[in-house]
Amino acid sequence: MHFAQPLALKSGAQLRDYSLVYETYGTLNTAKSNAVLVCHALNASHHVAGTYAGQDRSEGWWDNLVGPGKPLDTNRFFVIGVNNPGSCFGSTGPMHPHPDTGRPYGADFPVVTVEDWVDAQARLLDALGIQQLAAVLGGSLGGMQALSWSLRYPQRLRHCVAVATAPNLSAQNIAFNEVARRAIVTDPEFHGGHFYAHHTLPRRGLRVARMIGHITYLSDDAMEAKFGRSLKNGAPSYSTQDVEFEIESYLRHQGDKFSEYFDANTYLLITRALDYFDPAREHGGDLTAAFASAVCKFQLVSFTTDWRFAPARSREIVKALVDHKRDVSYAEIDAPHGHDAFLLDDPRYHGLLRAYFDKVAREFGHV
Amino acid sequence: MHFAQPLALKSGAQLRDYSLVYETYGTLNTAKSNAVLVCHALNASHHVAGTYAGQDRSEGWWDNLVGPGKPLDTNRFFVIGVNNPGSCFGSTGPMHPHPDTGRPYGADFPVVTVEDWVDAQARLLDALGIQQLAAVLGGSLGGMQALSWSLRYPQRLRHCVAVATAPNLSAQNIAFNEVARRAIVTDPEFHGGHFYAHHTLPRRGLRVARMIGHITYLSDDAMEAKFGRSLKNGAPSYSTQDVEFEIESYLRHQGDKFSEYFDANTYLLITRALDYFDPAREHGGDLTAAFASAVCKFQLVSFTTDWRFAPARSREIVKALVDHKRDVSYAEIDAPHGHDAFLLDDPRYHGLLRAYFDKVAREFGHV
Repeated sequence: MHFAQPLALKSGAQLRDYSLVYETYGTLNTAKSNAVLVCHALNASHHVAGTYAGQDRSEGWWDNLVGPGKPLDTNRFFVIGVNNPGSCFGSTGPMHPHPDTGRPYGADFPVVTVEDWVDAQARLLDALGIQQLAAVLGGSLGGMQALSWSLRYPQRLRHCVAVATAPNLSAQNIAFNEVARRAIVTDPEFHGGHFYAHHTLPRRGLRVARMIGHITYLSDDAMEAKFGRSLKNGAPSYSTQDVEFEIESYLRHQGDKFSEYFDANTYLLITRALDYFDPAREHGGDLTAAFASAVCKFQLVSFTTDWRFAPARSREIVKALVDHKRDVSYAEIDAPHGHDAFLLDDPRYHGLLRAYFDKVAREFGHV
Repeated sequence: MHFAQPLALKSGAQLRDYSLVYETYGTLNTAKSNAVLVCHALNASHHVAGTYAGQDRSEGWWDNLVGPGKPLDTNRFFVIGVNNPGSCFGSTGPMHPHPDTGRPYGADFPVVTVEDWVDAQARLLDALGIQQLAAVLGGSLGGMQALSWSLRYPQRLRHCVAVATAPNLSAQNIAFNEVARRAIVTDPEFHGGHFYAHHTLPRRGLRVARMIGHITYLSDDAMEAKFGRSLKNGAPSYSTQDVEFEIESYLRHQGDKFSEYFDANTYLLITRALDYFDPAREHGGDLTAAFASAVCKFQLVSFTTDWRFAPARSREIVKALVDHKRDVSYAEIDAPHGHDAFLLDDPRYHGLLRAYFDKVAREFGHV
């Protein structure tokens, strides 16, 4: 969907003449009361569920959760996935032409925030004629968008389902993002963010960025269980540069794959959106004050082994909501997979979300 | 000290015609029974204690622990610091000429292991006429060397003091090392490890490597307490590339400093020595079996917030020693600083080491 009206951004800049790519699943009911918005995290898109005809391995990134008969059941709900501006999966982003010059934005793409994405999503809903969402659902950075919805548009959602998320990034979280950004920005092929014009890609930087990211997505224990100290070739070959351990092979493979499809400027933009999200900042760091405007019901979920967005961070949000006597339910799932658990189909986790969405469906009369 | 006799390495290669730089503090007693070897970790050297005349800020890396009247009291002990081969602080390393070609070894420097370093240290002691050490002391990678001493030369030390260490690296530890190595190796200025001939340095890779390292040296809580989400300029400037948060400024500074003095090939060699250390491997992964040969007394120390070498890793070693009914004392220090705590002067930690070395001194008659 194309938007001719500029989007005012939190930075003071604006995004002009942009498009959002979105997908929907299921049918909007006549009362328009069964819509659920699913917000994506760093490395995902509007393609939440289902497969594309004739395309192998084209499952949506949350296909295990969203679909007919699944926990977020598209026989009941009208589910919307939208790609955020600044991304590299279809919506207007750094690889698209700057309206002033006709050349790719590159590093000149305006800095976008979680709040800006939520505003863009709200405009999409306006265009779709949906005044109030049954729920906004997101994990990780997507969970931050769900939380932001509850604060910016409190009347436009009845439920906020925020999984494996945090009220802001810790210093350590920012530190990991910054190392990844430095790896990209200092890659000579980055060319100050205008690598498109040089017909090249900062692949080396993207690989290192992705390897760092992967370490933080997995728990120490999960990595130990999956790879341990296994050697690729059974015995050490005593080399500083060759692959020696299985974990190295895995990380290099993940880095290589990522560097072929992900845009370097998008990586910078999305990690910055993570860094900046901090609804308490405007309230002197008081998260309870920040949540004063929220009126919807909340379901929060965290995973015991998630050290990127640890359970304690979700509990901060729960406390802020309880301080306001809001309707909040919180589940801490004992799962071994670290942050990645939010994308996996742990039966307790999916059972919980199924029960929650069943309740949401009953509210609009779907028995 | 120069060694004309080649050193046989674990890899099967050998190191020919090498030198070790070392420093000593205090006086060797006539019985030669008061010597303590201090082993260094990644980023340190033979310069353990004291300052160089006329050089500001030239304190040794463990100067808070080692010196006259300090916990490891050089009025009683003869302390030896030795730079390991492969390092970049004086002993034969990748920047020195290969004896075959006369050109710098670069990436052709043989892969060295913890065991090789211990063998080189033992030869130095032979040359110094010291048959048995009162103690070997080390932290982190230095602690691995202390453990290795107890296994390779069980009769040559009476005490092993291993701080903030582990019986091997976890998959996550290896993963962090590998990302750092990839950042260095893929820096175009690395030139396959022969950058000396190109009169350049892979500074970008070293910076990223050091930034990653620094994150793992500090605890999440210490980083939060020291930097939190403080902005460098008070308010956000909305930039993807400029420094925005204090933590970014700190990490960039650490990376810049490091890239000016540390050798890239040394970084690869030392992280590989960490990866390879695994005394249990030759015993089918059975750490208890690995420690069967150890006969000295042990003091192990870990720090509660050290997530790089967590207390659980030290407890594995304690268990292996207890299985053999060895004399082992273990302290888990409640300290906020993460892995870096082993270099700081936490009073409980230093008090413990002072008491331990007092006991060691009494054994050779120093009251």
